[in-house]
Amino acid sequence: MVSIVAASFTKFGKRDDDLLSLASQSADPLVQKYREDVDFFIVSNSYSGEYNGISGLNNLLTTRFSMDDVPSMRVDNTSGSGGSAVLVAKSLIESGMARNILITGVEKMTGGNGKNSTSIIASLLHNEERISGISLPSLGGFLAKLYMEEFNASRESLAMVAVKNHLNGSKNPYAQFQKPVTLEEVMNSKIIADPLRIFEFCPVSDGSASILVTSDENAPSFSSKIAKIIGCASASSTSSLSARNPMTTINAVKNASLKAFRNAGAKPSQMDFAELHDMSTILEIVESEDAGFFKKGEGWKALVEHKTDLKGEFPINTSGGLNSKGHPIGASGVAQAGEVFLQLTGMAGQRQVENANFGFSMSMAGFGNSSTAFVYQVI
Amino acid sequence: MVSIVAASFTKFGKRDDDLLSLASQSADPLVQKYREDVDFFIVSNSYSGEYNGISGLNNLLTTRFSMDDVPSMRVDNTSGSGGSAVLVAKSLIESGMARNILITGVEKMTGGNGKNSTSIIASLLHNEERISGISLPSLGGFLAKLYMEEFNASRESLAMVAVKNHLNGSKNPYAQFQKPVTLEEVMNSKIIADPLRIFEFCPVSDGSASILVTSDENAPSFSSKIAKIIGCASASSTSSLSARNPMTTINAVKNASLKAFRNAGAKPSQMDFAELHDMSTILEIVESEDAGFFKKGEGWKALVEHKTDLKGEFPINTSGGLNSKGHPIGASGVAQAGEVFLQLTGMAGQRQVENANFGFSMSMAGFGNSSTAFVYQVI
Repeated sequence: MVSIVAASFTKFGKRDDDLLSLASQSADPLVQKYREDVDFFIVSNSYSGEYNGISGLNNLLTTRFSMDDVPSMRVDNTSGSGGSAVLVAKSLIESGMARNILITGVEKMTGGNGKNSTSIIASLLHNEERISGISLPSLGGFLAKLYMEEFNASRESLAMVAVKNHLNGSKNPYAQFQKPVTLEEVMNSKIIADPLRIFEFCPVSDGSASILVTSDENAPSFSSKIAKIIGCASASSTSSLSARNPMTTINAVKNASLKAFRNAGAKPSQMDFAELHDMSTILEIVESEDAGFFKKGEGWKALVEHKTDLKGEFPINTSGGLNSKGHPIGASGVAQAGEVFLQLTGMAGQRQVENANFGFSMSMAGFGNSSTAFVYQVI
Repeated sequence: MVSIVAASFTKFGKRDDDLLSLASQSADPLVQKYREDVDFFIVSNSYSGEYNGISGLNNLLTTRFSMDDVPSMRVDNTSGSGGSAVLVAKSLIESGMARNILITGVEKMTGGNGKNSTSIIASLLHNEERISGISLPSLGGFLAKLYMEEFNASRESLAMVAVKNHLNGSKNPYAQFQKPVTLEEVMNSKIIADPLRIFEFCPVSDGSASILVTSDENAPSFSSKIAKIIGCASASSTSSLSARNPMTTINAVKNASLKAFRNAGAKPSQMDFAELHDMSTILEIVESEDAGFFKKGEGWKALVEHKTDLKGEFPINTSGGLNSKGHPIGASGVAQAGEVFLQLTGMAGQRQVENANFGFSMSMAGFGNSSTAFVYQVI
């Protein structure tokens, strides 16, 4: 089994720095401290070619980090890249191929070549749906309508995800949005994909996050602050949304979570908090059910009852989530693991969850095309 | 430890089919046969965004293969992607995260958006070298000059790599070039990067290769034709070529090979043949030394003495190599593993090496920025 022993972040947002600089900014504190120990480097990144005209990012970064002899690769799974990268790191260590792995997740999505970001991201959609003009945001709107209708969920409950996550983000110095928003502001903001409004979607972001992963045996030699990955699993759903039945369940999330809890020997009810993939507000609700934290159709009630607030009985997205922290594609899954590490080791500052012993994160690709679930325990 | 139990190829070359079709063409025979057994899918691909306007390729392919519930990811390491993908598969299996993995390497580089292929590939170069107008071919020319000067190597010895590999390619139905070339034709062909000529570089290619990787224990239940990976290691060199000293040694190749032989408990002299990364003729020679098959500065003599011919004492690039088989970036490393599988299991047809018990392959990223070495044994 493996543990996370260090985490480092850049501020997410619209940044002037280029892709390599952003990667360095989160990696440098770990590189300075652990350069001699790192024997594998993984960069979690999806769109360096499309946004930044760069390929071979892993090799450019090892040179930049003065870690020229350290083997490396890029792991990509669109929005779920970070989860896949951590899964690969876990396997490399457990199989004895590596001992101590630096993972840097990074994406630079603003500025650049002027191509429309929505169309770049839409390149992950099933061709038949893409040519019908469907985009990731429109799928969010579609799922919101279906969910509200099927489970009689209130419109406000969805908006409350944005209110909660913006409040959490305001307590996270690395978050893109630093200001709380009111329910009224969310409900009156610009419509993006009916019924969802602009505050209910993650922004386009630049940013980077790095973690150091090592074996449980090595972990104490690095730090006394250790978050152990006790369960980890990946699963997929069809990338053709219209082929899903029911559409309000994301099988990739359900199956990855089931397996991760099974190999952790733990239950959802034991978790103290979770980081979920809230690209749109509705996704946080649906995932909170599919991961097993609430019964199907009841995730929305948890919002109304403030159960998932920072001070609630089961805080979700303490970091601010993608919704408020931002979503630099390749960085998000790594940043989730980093947030869980901070929470479990008591380093989450103003947004610290009390008595956090078990944490969960869900890194998702596309609109639930693929997911990797993680169960963590503090040592 | 893990084994390869099946391999499948498309013809490499300028193909009319799109990226997803090419991937399907090599994967389908394995999918038809093993769909129920496969529990992880890895696509080895570098440039789906740049050339094909596609992201999330792994998820689109699992849907296309009717393997919607199979978790997946994309592994990228530019020209060395295939080696990294096999290394990840090995780790996933050995760590118990997966049992039977389908790997498909694919690239569709011709046609498409009209961008210049050389400039897309040059996006992997160190910025300072790229802005000086350096490209991958120009590095080949530069290395050729240095090598010839340092080791008093004959100009013809380099060209003989192309003659040998085109002859081998003419015996490989999947190779892009199906015709032998003479030494005169090579030496009189168009200069690309002085002193190297067009026949001495791999072409721009489309194509795909797929393999099925499983644990040694499971392997016999799939097939009686089994190639076991007995050693595997990855290593890196600086991506800044001007910082290498000496420039005629590729540390990534040297270190990956050393480690792979060490963990195989085998020696270079035990190998019966090798697949090397001959993006340019000079690279085959330099790698044949750095991997330990010939002394430094003597690899060129092996060509003159016909030692590396198909009927020589140590055949190199029996498949035709990148030089003649073609080099669809993400597919090449997977195709190398596939060629070794065919040779070790006696299925290499007209290009079969007699008494092939041990094989070697070298998957290389960029111009030696990163390498993954494999040592195989037939079971």
